[in-house]
Amino acid sequence: MELGMIGLGRMGAAMVRRLLKAGHSCVVHDTRRESVDSLQKDGAQGAHSLEELVRRLPAPRAVWLMLPAGVVDGTLTKLTALLEAGDTVIEGGNSHYRDDLRRSAELRARGIHYVDAGVSGGVWGQTRGYCLMIGGEQEAVGRLEPVFSALAPGVEAEPRTPGREGPPTPAEQGWLHCGPNGAGHFVKMVHNGIEYALMAAYAEGLNILHHANVGKHPPTADAETAPLREPEAYPYDFNLAEVTELWRRGSVIGSWLLDLSAQALFKNPELSDFSGRVSDSGEGRWTQQAAIDEGVPTPVLASALYSRFTSQGEAEFSNKLLSAMRFAFGGHLEKKMKGGG
Amino acid sequence: MELGMIGLGRMGAAMVRRLLKAGHSCVVHDTRRESVDSLQKDGAQGAHSLEELVRRLPAPRAVWLMLPAGVVDGTLTKLTALLEAGDTVIEGGNSHYRDDLRRSAELRARGIHYVDAGVSGGVWGQTRGYCLMIGGEQEAVGRLEPVFSALAPGVEAEPRTPGREGPPTPAEQGWLHCGPNGAGHFVKMVHNGIEYALMAAYAEGLNILHHANVGKHPPTADAETAPLREPEAYPYDFNLAEVTELWRRGSVIGSWLLDLSAQALFKNPELSDFSGRVSDSGEGRWTQQAAIDEGVPTPVLASALYSRFTSQGEAEFSNKLLSAMRFAFGGHLEKKMKGGG
Amino acid sequence: MELGMIGLGRMGAAMVRRLLKAGHSCVVHDTRRESVDSLQKDGAQGAHSLEELVRRLPAPRAVWLMLPAGVVDGTLTKLTALLEAGDTVIEGGNSHYRDDLRRSAELRARGIHYVDAGVSGGVWGQTRGYCLMIGGEQEAVGRLEPVFSALAPGVEAEPRTPGREGPPTPAEQGWLHCGPNGAGHFVKMVHNGIEYALMAAYAEGLNILHHANVGKHPPTADAETAPLREPEAYPYDFNLAEVTELWRRGSVIGSWLLDLSAQALFKNPELSDFSGRVSDSGEGRWTQQAAIDEGVPTPVLASALYSRFTSQGEAEFSNKLLSAMRFAFGGHLEKKMKGGG
Amino acid sequence: MELGMIGLGRMGAAMVRRLLKAGHSCVVHDTRRESVDSLQKDGAQGAHSLEELVRRLPAPRAVWLMLPAGVVDGTLTKLTALLEAGDTVIEGGNSHYRDDLRRSAELRARGIHYVDAGVSGGVWGQTRGYCLMIGGEQEAVGRLEPVFSALAPGVEAEPRTPGREGPPTPAEQGWLHCGPNGAGHFVKMVHNGIEYALMAAYAEGLNILHHANVGKHPPTADAETAPLREPEAYPYDFNLAEVTELWRRGSVIGSWLLDLSAQALFKNPELSDFSGRVSDSGEGRWTQQAAIDEGVPTPVLASALYSRFTSQGEAEFSNKLLSAMRFAFGGHLEKKMKGGG
Repeated sequence: MELGMIGLGRMGAAMVRRLLKAGHSCVVHDTRRESVDSLQKDGAQGAHSLEELVRRLPAPRAVWLMLPAGVVDGTLTKLTALLEAGDTVIEGGNSHYRDDLRRSAELRARGIHYVDAGVSGGVWGQTRGYCLMIGGEQEAVGRLEPVFSALAPGVEAEPRTPGREGPPTPAEQGWLHCGPNGAGHFVKMVHNGIEYALMAAYAEGLNILHHANVGKHPPTADAETAPLREPEAYPYDFNLAEVTELWRRGSVIGSWLLDLSAQALFKNPELSDFSGRVSDSGEGRWTQQAAIDEGVPTPVLASALYSRFTSQGEAEFSNKLLSAMRFAFGGHLEKKMKGGG
Repeated sequence: MELGMIGLGRMGAAMVRRLLKAGHSCVVHDTRRESVDSLQKDGAQGAHSLEELVRRLPAPRAVWLMLPAGVVDGTLTKLTALLEAGDTVIEGGNSHYRDDLRRSAELRARGIHYVDAGVSGGVWGQTRGYCLMIGGEQEAVGRLEPVFSALAPGVEAEPRTPGREGPPTPAEQGWLHCGPNGAGHFVKMVHNGIEYALMAAYAEGLNILHHANVGKHPPTADAETAPLREPEAYPYDFNLAEVTELWRRGSVIGSWLLDLSAQALFKNPELSDFSGRVSDSGEGRWTQQAAIDEGVPTPVLASALYSRFTSQGEAEFSNKLLSAMRFAFGGHLEKKMKGGG
Repeated sequence: MELGMIGLGRMGAAMVRRLLKAGHSCVVHDTRRESVDSLQKDGAQGAHSLEELVRRLPAPRAVWLMLPAGVVDGTLTKLTALLEAGDTVIEGGNSHYRDDLRRSAELRARGIHYVDAGVSGGVWGQTRGYCLMIGGEQEAVGRLEPVFSALAPGVEAEPRTPGREGPPTPAEQGWLHCGPNGAGHFVKMVHNGIEYALMAAYAEGLNILHHANVGKHPPTADAETAPLREPEAYPYDFNLAEVTELWRRGSVIGSWLLDLSAQALFKNPELSDFSGRVSDSGEGRWTQQAAIDEGVPTPVLASALYSRFTSQGEAEFSNKLLSAMRFAFGGHLEKKMKGGG
Repeated sequence: MELGMIGLGRMGAAMVRRLLKAGHSCVVHDTRRESVDSLQKDGAQGAHSLEELVRRLPAPRAVWLMLPAGVVDGTLTKLTALLEAGDTVIEGGNSHYRDDLRRSAELRARGIHYVDAGVSGGVWGQTRGYCLMIGGEQEAVGRLEPVFSALAPGVEAEPRTPGREGPPTPAEQGWLHCGPNGAGHFVKMVHNGIEYALMAAYAEGLNILHHANVGKHPPTADAETAPLREPEAYPYDFNLAEVTELWRRGSVIGSWLLDLSAQALFKNPELSDFSGRVSDSGEGRWTQQAAIDEGVPTPVLASALYSRFTSQGEAEFSNKLLSAMRFAFGGHLEKKMKGGG
């Protein structure tokens, strides 16, 4: 079928290429002309304005937005002014699902369908396929089935779950109509919340292995440092590239994130390309807000999120206050940071 | 090669079958005669006592223990009285690595080698292969290479990590000599610590999805219950069997634990076979102790462990004290538990 | 001065009594006639309708609302229809500070002042005085200074902070104009977020002391239960009423919450009047939401909140999924809960 | 009575002064001659060697050790060689209670009593009195009652708990015989575990207030930074010195740690004397180990401890691994740290 794609960054461009390869037609637009030109060479129809994109698509149109969260609303306003009743907009970026609720109500009043699509797969999606979490009305979602099927990895990407027989469900192919508007980004939001904690689980565990030789050089015990009681129990110099490689086969903790960790540690065992500051892009925060609204305990997910905030330097005032209290009641003056910070 | 196996429970018996299939000879013993008989029919040599097992093995012997943690030391004492200098004992159960340090020193004094082997793979290992984390002296470990190779899944179990070329390392086959004694169980301990947190990450996230329809039946707001400010934002009835199935293909959070979750939710979406009490078998605890000794922050791993303790009812006194304080300062009387608890 | 009070529950009635005792005049209203009558006997002027209350107050009026959060908006709508430009409404209940932002803008458009007041002190406030956290315009707040002074504990309630000299600031007396509208309930919100964590700190620590005799009756070690490695290190039967009493004098952790804990444990060492379910009334949740919006790490506050959610039974589905995974990979069947749950 | 004191640092010297003031005789020793001389001027008998100290004390002797944890065992070995059956050693430093178990058994074999004393009060204890948590045999503890009474704050330090009548118990005076050997340091250990979490509760909450003006200068939203959805809800410039002062009177969260926070923030609102690195001196770690051995969930206490580890730089490798994974799956390159780190 024919699909318009607005936003040709890392994700959007790769999705278009996957769609073209599957035989779909794509009309593409981006504010950067070179992004449009590059995809045009690969078989897409370039559009150098929203007007041109809308004009080139047959009604009822389907236009997919793949934009940074901050520019979605502005683009949507301009775009919907050009669309007609019966057209469909698919928002595939990192939108908060509450924005989907608001936008879909606004567009519905004008007869335009809104579909929210959470997209996972990262830079690997072009070859591996994208996992698609979809929210919207049945009618609009159903019409887009060929696009979702082409983007998704397909059932053969993993062995079928025992007991599942007959024609694969959409979920088995890698896309799912999760529910009404917002449902797609809600599921994607929780997906990312889980992702943060999975990542932290590996990172914390591997950090224990990384420090398992602390007994060879135990920290000086003084009034300000807890002594290591049994240094002889920490003599191990583990090779983390080999350990993560090992766990990929036969262990309970095999996963794609482990595969990536093994790759990263094989390339650079000390991970010296990275500074220790870890960004968060919103979904982890929104996941906590949903958990709190629902009254659902998520201590593991929360810990992973807060560790990122701390890595960004945001515990500094807290820590200074701890030191100020320690000085006030015990006369403790803190030792300086490693590296003289 | 020839291997003695003591302990023919779920794990030990399956490992023997995998070894037999690979062409190794096994002399097997268990205190339950029927376990011995059953494996004898599959091609193992049965031994109805430790003496018989030792007698049937050619020197230098290799004897693998696959026993509940509580009976290892007793069996080891009896066994080593029968062994000779040059023999090797492999402890493959859930031992604390500090017990490995102690035992290996004791056996070394008598010329007997001790190898610790952390084994992951659970009930699926017989067909899928076992992930083996090995600690001990190079000489003893090297001699056992054919056994480890046969038990491990093999390199073909997963695609090779990009950049790894030439003959696969042992880790790529699914076994690794991690370091001196204790190193195997240390790595296995951290593996399980990570496992607890990975499991909790999925469980907490799916619990948010499970409650995403709370807006349809918001809890009564009263002085003792926080009101849900925007119930209209929680209208979703998610199908968790389909969502977990979806995430298996193309998402960032694919893993074997997710595969198992998808299976469990497909079979019984409400998970009504389970009570909500979750055991912990030691490694998660020891992982925390190592983190604390090393001074390494592991808030995510700790949260997962403490959630299990709470599921076991161990927060009860804490919670009563919270209620007692609330009553003391605010006159708050708590509402009764769901179900009148 | 003259103050109207709407809402004569535990808090509102006691505040009126404290104001009357300080020589202020109060016109009081509640939907329960007997609450009005009871305060009338103590010297307040009763009003059996909002109209009567407004009529009895001289302009410019000051009316304090002390109502359950759920009925504030309804009452406010009726009340403001009766008020005139120049009047002031003080909202002293457990409002979300964002509701203060909305309401104050609405009332400002009509020339009515809105002041938000976070009130701490619980059932003890009538004698001990109330800690008042105030938000609003300087003009409106300044006019209410006599009321705030009368409600607050006064500077003599605690020794002055070293270095503070001269006339005590309002904060030293126990009330503070924290900032523009919403500031009062914002500070009260964080106060309660801190409160939850302080309470949890004592509760968790005392739970460790409560179980310090576990070595006398160690749990049976089996494949589903982690063994206690050194039972001889846990022989202690602590008297928690005496320990909490002890900590009240000279320790670093003395506090009012500790005083209350000591009282509760002295009355009933096993706390058998309480079930283990702990409510949360909103501020702890909103505190987390603010922390997340700000990107500030609050792992300790979050853990305290999530422990309450868990006590309310909301981890049940998570825990069932953990058991389902354990069964899937290891064939583990969980032990039954204590008491056969 | 007569008491020997070994170790005249901040704590030991102040304790001697408090004992002298109460009329007790003290023989004092320290490896630093000037510390001995200084106390001699205040009325103590100086001893320039352990031999001299022992010689100057009448049998049965009572000798209190107030030393850094790392030198206790060495000093104890030398000291006990000089003591006689019937003498008593009191260890008042930051010993692990398991060391008390070991040492008391060793000394008991030689007829020497061992008493463990957890001492809280910090630099304020000389005037305020010390909170004493005592473990040991009844006979030895009973004999020391005059010393404990003199060091403790006394019943008048706080109002009596309602319901407590008649002669005050020792706990009401500020000292308690908690149980057999180790019990004193066990209770002190948990005291410190609680202390860490109380401190963190205030620090985290005040950090939220500190950042409540983030809406005035919202962080730039980009693909690597979560946007602040409603900046207008974060306009507040709170004065934390006034807020903490406010909470001291009438609020639920009043405490000595809050008093100290109010002092520190009054002196230096930005806490610029401190770097953000927070030490931990052992008890917080041991508290977690006890909780884990007992299977008691302590998520709040653990979070406080791990935040300190993180402040010490120990999450660095974890965080690098998170960044490495983010780069691997999403091509994310992290932003630089504030201040160019």
